[in-house]
Amino acid sequence: MNGAQALIRTLVGCGVDVCFTNPGTSEMHFVAALDDVPEMRAVLGLFEGVVTGAADGYGRMTGTPAATLLHLGPGLGNGIANLHNARRARTPIVNIVGDHATYHQALDAPLQSDIESLARPVSAWYRAARDPSSLAADAADAVTAAYGPPGGVATLVVPADVSWTEAGGPAPTQPRAVPAIAAVDAVEGAAKALRSGEPAVLFVGGGATRERGLLAAARVAQTTGCRLLCETFPARLERGAGVPPVERLAYFAEMAAGQLEGTRHLVLAGARSPVSFFAYPGKAGDLVPDGCEVHCLADPGEDAARALEDLAEALGASGVALDLAGPVRPDRPSGALSAATVGLAIGSLLPDGAIVCDEANTSGQFTLRATGGGPRHDWLCLTGGAIGLGLPLATGAAVACPDRPVLCLEADGSAMYTLQALWTHAREGLDVTTVIFNNRSYAILAIELGRVGATAGGPRALDMFDLGRPALDFVSLAEAMGVPASRATTAEEFAAQLDRALGTPGPALVEAVI
Amino acid sequence: MNGAQALIRTLVGCGVDVCFTNPGTSEMHFVAALDDVPEMRAVLGLFEGVVTGAADGYGRMTGTPAATLLHLGPGLGNGIANLHNARRARTPIVNIVGDHATYHQALDAPLQSDIESLARPVSAWYRAARDPSSLAADAADAVTAAYGPPGGVATLVVPADVSWTEAGGPAPTQPRAVPAIAAVDAVEGAAKALRSGEPAVLFVGGGATRERGLLAAARVAQTTGCRLLCETFPARLERGAGVPPVERLAYFAEMAAGQLEGTRHLVLAGARSPVSFFAYPGKAGDLVPDGCEVHCLADPGEDAARALEDLAEALGASGVALDLAGPVRPDRPSGALSAATVGLAIGSLLPDGAIVCDEANTSGQFTLRATGGGPRHDWLCLTGGAIGLGLPLATGAAVACPDRPVLCLEADGSAMYTLQALWTHAREGLDVTTVIFNNRSYAILAIELGRVGATAGGPRALDMFDLGRPALDFVSLAEAMGVPASRATTAEEFAAQLDRALGTPGPALVEAVI
Repeated sequence: MNGAQALIRTLVGCGVDVCFTNPGTSEMHFVAALDDVPEMRAVLGLFEGVVTGAADGYGRMTGTPAATLLHLGPGLGNGIANLHNARRARTPIVNIVGDHATYHQALDAPLQSDIESLARPVSAWYRAARDPSSLAADAADAVTAAYGPPGGVATLVVPADVSWTEAGGPAPTQPRAVPAIAAVDAVEGAAKALRSGEPAVLFVGGGATRERGLLAAARVAQTTGCRLLCETFPARLERGAGVPPVERLAYFAEMAAGQLEGTRHLVLAGARSPVSFFAYPGKAGDLVPDGCEVHCLADPGEDAARALEDLAEALGASGVALDLAGPVRPDRPSGALSAATVGLAIGSLLPDGAIVCDEANTSGQFTLRATGGGPRHDWLCLTGGAIGLGLPLATGAAVACPDRPVLCLEADGSAMYTLQALWTHAREGLDVTTVIFNNRSYAILAIELGRVGATAGGPRALDMFDLGRPALDFVSLAEAMGVPASRATTAEEFAAQLDRALGTPGPALVEAVI
Repeated sequence: MNGAQALIRTLVGCGVDVCFTNPGTSEMHFVAALDDVPEMRAVLGLFEGVVTGAADGYGRMTGTPAATLLHLGPGLGNGIANLHNARRARTPIVNIVGDHATYHQALDAPLQSDIESLARPVSAWYRAARDPSSLAADAADAVTAAYGPPGGVATLVVPADVSWTEAGGPAPTQPRAVPAIAAVDAVEGAAKALRSGEPAVLFVGGGATRERGLLAAARVAQTTGCRLLCETFPARLERGAGVPPVERLAYFAEMAAGQLEGTRHLVLAGARSPVSFFAYPGKAGDLVPDGCEVHCLADPGEDAARALEDLAEALGASGVALDLAGPVRPDRPSGALSAATVGLAIGSLLPDGAIVCDEANTSGQFTLRATGGGPRHDWLCLTGGAIGLGLPLATGAAVACPDRPVLCLEADGSAMYTLQALWTHAREGLDVTTVIFNNRSYAILAIELGRVGATAGGPRALDMFDLGRPALDFVSLAEAMGVPASRATTAEEFAAQLDRALGTPGPALVEAVI
């Protein structure tokens, strides 16, 4: 058994049995070993950003790391943006980066680069394997590191000769750590703050944005009268019928400041203290209001949902009946197609159990509002702000959950960063319906131009946001990669096309011209 | 004048008047300043790999840096692969990376990352600006660093507040260093080796692969009987009628070893000592044969063409008449379409003064052979092995040389990494004709699988090289981004379509199904 075989067997033994790949020569022994270890499913992407974003989507939905397979520093480079998003989501990923043979590295061959320097900023754990006999143990360590808690990207660099040399057998599975339970002091401190009667916000994020955490948080909010907010871009937010609704902190700093204005106590449950996404001249970056005390109930390495249950218990809120609204959908819209009517159509048709991968940016807010009362679903966000996540994220979510429909909401500009994911949707027959919000612009930048006070922007500046010259034809782009597609220009057309796409297994794309 | 305006005015003053951009919020003041400084041409790319690859193509063809404009760490991340290629090509580039406002960085907002760690591996020079009043000087320093010699990627990180704050005026242009002249000892040592009568190779690269260096090298070779070789992937190789032909060192190590076998003296002129592109089990990585002495005539920071002229002078070869073959083209091919007949068709039609951007990989060798005797042209290679360069490189070359036809040779797999460049071809009306060699596979990897000794590869491994499931329709992909396109399945069709594409101004794509 060579190193690559021992590596893959170890991964499979540790429960890592999906690998998103874009390999090159230095990874050929890993690829060859796929035939020896059929338990490992390899999913090919045409670009490394697809690979890493898919691993993020897979990890968010399963809680189990997928592996990636990337080709030296440049292959890792292409995957960095989505690893950055995964880092912010604390998604467990085992990131395998092939490298030149150990003895070849000193020669500075053309593909040689400083992989460690590239990997560290996106990796919670990093190791370069040097010895075939310890590669399997390296892999087991990587899996353990990826699980955390808190979870994260574990990058293991595997030189070609470490892969191809005789290596003994796989390494044993390691015990998994469980998230720590929040300290009694933290629970009591939060309880005291919420009992004070002063304006308070319970701010949830991380592991607290799923049903269990939201139920406890809602009971706390109902009992104490505090305001419940969740982080702006949760990695995985459970929503819809039966799940308490939670308002997200706004992306624009002045709106977020408005949501938090007057707050005297801010209780963090799995979320970090809120800061502005960008800096703006003359505006504060730290969104905690003056005079507000911040209480950390549970940090990201702790079990935030459990901490919220403990908090509810401390407040006598555990048994409180929640007044959750029943399922309610908007009617199918008619008339002109806009981000608003697209949202209503999605709200009217969202399938039960859907996984929504949201990179619709300026266009997505309407859809968020129109789906909150619908059937149960998960909403996956652009956690790190690195554009080009949506389509890959949907890839991984669909591989993770083959029995659930995936709905990918993509802005036109964002879609073009990692559009190659559509090919993987087709190749794997994934049940992903992609909606492209085609407004033919980087609309967010046109807004931000004014917000940063860059008032001098004239036609040459605005030209940098214009995606209409030439117009992008997303129907042809999708079909050219094997994904059936259609274009809608009215609300009726869009709803009919979306209905058909959602009702048909396998991938589809609907371009909404808004 | 704010920092961004001072920055752009300084760049323009230093001769950097093209900026390839994919900006975000933190770069909005730079974008706004484009209207204040109309001398700066901004060229938008839909993905950062397009931006950095275009800057590489521009720098290779002009010798002058283009600027890039990238959005924080993730934007830089997306551009790293092509910056890696630029680093290997020693292309001058001024890489501008926006960052959060200085005071915002401590807040660890979602897009915060360690930009320096990401940038260092691809940058010959790095600086993070901190002070608006010195930003213009930072920019002038970056230009100086980019020029070298040797040239390289100079990365300047510009925090948003450094851009938006009042900054005084632009900085003065700095004097440019000229490449050092090779030492007399080095010239004499090389001359002595070549006079020895022992088997010798003159190995040219870097600045020695253009007409001036190749003429001197050919005179040396003709006079001394040494063998003339050039590096495997030259950044810019001048070829065709009137330019001495030069054989490239083979990509496959065993073939390269064969070219160098028996060599007792290896004289380096602008090239690094040859090493194998990848390591293979049981094969040497250092390609210098045992017993061969290596003589460095000129290193990459020296004027290699001048050193070759000095060498010719020392050998009494300066005035030697070269027996250069007249222009000769293959006939237009007929019959089945293959990499070979595509090459013949290109050879029969290559326009005078063409710039060939070659990322055809396994398919490109025939075209290389079929064009050597044709009209004068430049051949630009994948210097660093980071896939996804060809289409962006063609973008930059076409912006650099609007009066010259650009021919982009792309393998299907490689094309899919940065296909978004086609949109920029259309948007800017660039005279780029792209040929896609569509063999529906990562053919190089199928070859490499066997070469690395990974004999266990079965159907699951081979599936990782199969790009035919589903087949990619490059005609639709191109047309969807505004580039007229056609598909050829016979040699006659291909030649006719290529002829039409080359004869029509503006971008075009021909998909060759081989």
